Amino acid sequence: MTQSLRQMNLNVFILNAGHHEAAWRYKGTEPHQMTDIRYFQKLAKIAEDAKFDSLFLADGLAINNHIRYGSFIGLEPFTLLSALAAVTQHIGLIGTVSTTYNEPFHVARKFASLDHISRGRAGWNIVTSGSEAEAGNFGSVPHLEHSQRYVRAKEFLEVTTRLWDSWEDEAIVMDRRAGQFADPSKVREIHHEGDVFSVRGPLNVPRSPQGYPVLVQAGSSEDGKAFAARYAEAIFTAQQTLEEAKRFYTDVKSRLSSYGRHPDELKILPGICAIIGDTDAEAKEKEQELNELTIPEYGLKQLSNMLQVDLSSFPLDGPLPELPGIERINGNKSRYQLVTDLYTREQLTIRELIHRLAGGRGHRVIAGTPAHIADELEAWFTQGASDGFNVMPPYLPEGLERFAQQIVPELQRRGLFRREYTGATLREHFNLSRPANQFVSTPAVQH
Amino acid sequence: MTQSLRQMNLNVFILNAGHHEAAWRYKGTEPHQMTDIRYFQKLAKIAEDAKFDSLFLADGLAINNHIRYGSFIGLEPFTLLSALAAVTQHIGLIGTVSTTYNEPFHVARKFASLDHISRGRAGWNIVTSGSEAEAGNFGSVPHLEHSQRYVRAKEFLEVTTRLWDSWEDEAIVMDRRAGQFADPSKVREIHHEGDVFSVRGPLNVPRSPQGYPVLVQAGSSEDGKAFAARYAEAIFTAQQTLEEAKRFYTDVKSRLSSYGRHPDELKILPGICAIIGDTDAEAKEKEQELNELTIPEYGLKQLSNMLQVDLSSFPLDGPLPELPGIERINGNKSRYQLVTDLYTREQLTIRELIHRLAGGRGHRVIAGTPAHIADELEAWFTQGASDGFNVMPPYLPEGLERFAQQIVPELQRRGLFRREYTGATLREHFNLSRPANQFVSTPAVQH
Repeated sequence: MTQSLRQMNLNVFILNAGHHEAAWRYKGTEPHQMTDIRYFQKLAKIAEDAKFDSLFLADGLAINNHIRYGSFIGLEPFTLLSALAAVTQHIGLIGTVSTTYNEPFHVARKFASLDHISRGRAGWNIVTSGSEAEAGNFGSVPHLEHSQRYVRAKEFLEVTTRLWDSWEDEAIVMDRRAGQFADPSKVREIHHEGDVFSVRGPLNVPRSPQGYPVLVQAGSSEDGKAFAARYAEAIFTAQQTLEEAKRFYTDVKSRLSSYGRHPDELKILPGICAIIGDTDAEAKEKEQELNELTIPEYGLKQLSNMLQVDLSSFPLDGPLPELPGIERINGNKSRYQLVTDLYTREQLTIRELIHRLAGGRGHRVIAGTPAHIADELEAWFTQGASDGFNVMPPYLPEGLERFAQQIVPELQRRGLFRREYTGATLREHFNLSRPANQFVSTPAVQH
Repeated sequence: MTQSLRQMNLNVFILNAGHHEAAWRYKGTEPHQMTDIRYFQKLAKIAEDAKFDSLFLADGLAINNHIRYGSFIGLEPFTLLSALAAVTQHIGLIGTVSTTYNEPFHVARKFASLDHISRGRAGWNIVTSGSEAEAGNFGSVPHLEHSQRYVRAKEFLEVTTRLWDSWEDEAIVMDRRAGQFADPSKVREIHHEGDVFSVRGPLNVPRSPQGYPVLVQAGSSEDGKAFAARYAEAIFTAQQTLEEAKRFYTDVKSRLSSYGRHPDELKILPGICAIIGDTDAEAKEKEQELNELTIPEYGLKQLSNMLQVDLSSFPLDGPLPELPGIERINGNKSRYQLVTDLYTREQLTIRELIHRLAGGRGHRVIAGTPAHIADELEAWFTQGASDGFNVMPPYLPEGLERFAQQIVPELQRRGLFRREYTGATLREHFNLSRPANQFVSTPAVQH
């Protein structure tokens, strides 16, 4: 049976014991498994059995939280995703890698390699690493201001895409009898000489199944949106309300034409942290239970980081102090905007704001029945607010199992999500074309 | 039965279709599989079934050969080794990573992660990347002269070992009831401020099963030997004759005491490319067959790279021209010495020299019966020339299968090699202790 309705794309975002900041204290979670690959392999198989498009791992280059009460630490994405590729067959594998503290040759090589190893399932969530803590671990690299990080990111992408194209698909000849290994006219030096990078090329790995990994972006600032409109093929974004999400969707999609791109070439996937109960009341109770396990000092430290102001001396049950203003933020500008909007719209105390952020750090949290949550997802998907979702289970593995067993089948019944994988690569899952090789019509440099 | 005799350590060095430069043209090899992870997984399982200590992948950061006739290209080591970790249980996994074109935070993180994923089987072959081709791919990083690369490597190791020690083994508390995730007094900023690097730390992954990956080194120059004596726990080395190998072994082992190290803390593993036949004559024929498949232009280019002189205009059946002298070599100094010694000792023509190098690029090649090869290995091992071997199959997979099926059992019969794995980690296979944490007796920085 062919599926005529437009289909959602679903990514699962895996984060240690779950996205809720108290997940590691919640019953049934396995926080001690955070460095055990078998834990992640188990989660990947649950997601693959449910036909998720992809699995995504966030990453940072520092511990940047209150280590006494929890922290985003764990396995490095390339090694982790490659170990997942070895035990899965279909699901896409998306990792976060910074353009600020890396060299394009290494990143191009590792993604090409992961794409070969997974036979076309690699995706790159491109980040620019704004925190002071990260800068401190790379002190010999200049610490760049927000817009300068995007300038570097843009040149980084120019270099990596040229490196991925430095081998034509047919470059390997492998004529054993004649003794010809490769066709030198199809392997090119790229001779990139830019403001930031100087890279001769070619890459030392042949062009991979997808040509490029699927390019993902999560910054929703002005710089982030402009970058996404040029390069991104999927966006992970935090949106709290349908109206805001529609505005963001329309805004970003409308920017693509100036780069000669069709709106379908970029999938917009708002985050959704679903707290699932058999009744709405049970779901709300569970949310309450999770919120009560949060540790105020930890939430306050996270909120202080987001707002770039030290909140430790202000009463939890009072209002926020005066804030620095978005133009002073050198980290995640769009998250700053989201949090201050949320605070103003809902007239919250500091403690209430911390609880509102505990489930998804600014991403949308819905507590309800499977049908209620599916209704919400369908509404956003059909009303021009999203092309699918970035599913952020509040606690693991059960939060993912329930999504897989209760919400996915509901979406399938409604004809909104695949029942079987029909493609082999992540590009095929996302209905994205394989990039043409930018050098194919130009003459090659001989080696 | 306990094994009282001293035991060999055997590493298998996997290189595309095999180490002989004509391997990709030889019958039964699978050069078209060079980007297919299943090929490497198959080889890893053959080696693990034979109880090899470890598997090693070389790497470089450029294509630096004659691409028409073959090249060292392929999958990147971290992603490849991690995908092998997922399907093996015992064998050590050693990857080559450069200290010249990397940041210590990234390298420390990836090795800690690989060590967690493999549950204690990671090893790092530390290289300093001397080629011009590699420098061209990292043009924004200063291109360093030989001894300066070792200065950087030394500081790189200071930083990575401190990062690996930045978490004490007991730092994760995971007291879910009390809400304590980690003990901040056991997680340290390292505050490294050196000539090359500035790194605050801590690492964002807890201390791994082995503490540090096994540290391996392959440079045999004066700088290389001094570095090895300080840091290396295994050395891959090219040695052509028993006398040279004994001299190298004695020299390096004698240097350890000045760093407070015992000679057993460093395993010396000369390379051996074994061409195995049922008779010596059959083995010699096979060697001849392989040599006849070499392409002179390719071998000449490789030899030109090693000697850093353009040989393309000299007759193949004549002598080498005047050479630059070792003090002018900015790449692999010890290989230059080995090749020029071999040329002088055996009074070869350029063509003969190319054939002598085709099997192992300067490593020792033996063509013979399993018993003959085992005799040679035993002689080197018992006469103070090695602690084991770096096994370099001339062609794959058959060259490895024959070593596993014919030479390993012969070594086992002689009581020189394990019949079963007795340890779980690579350190245990190599009989190396787990490094103590350098910070354990000092007070921690609070977070």
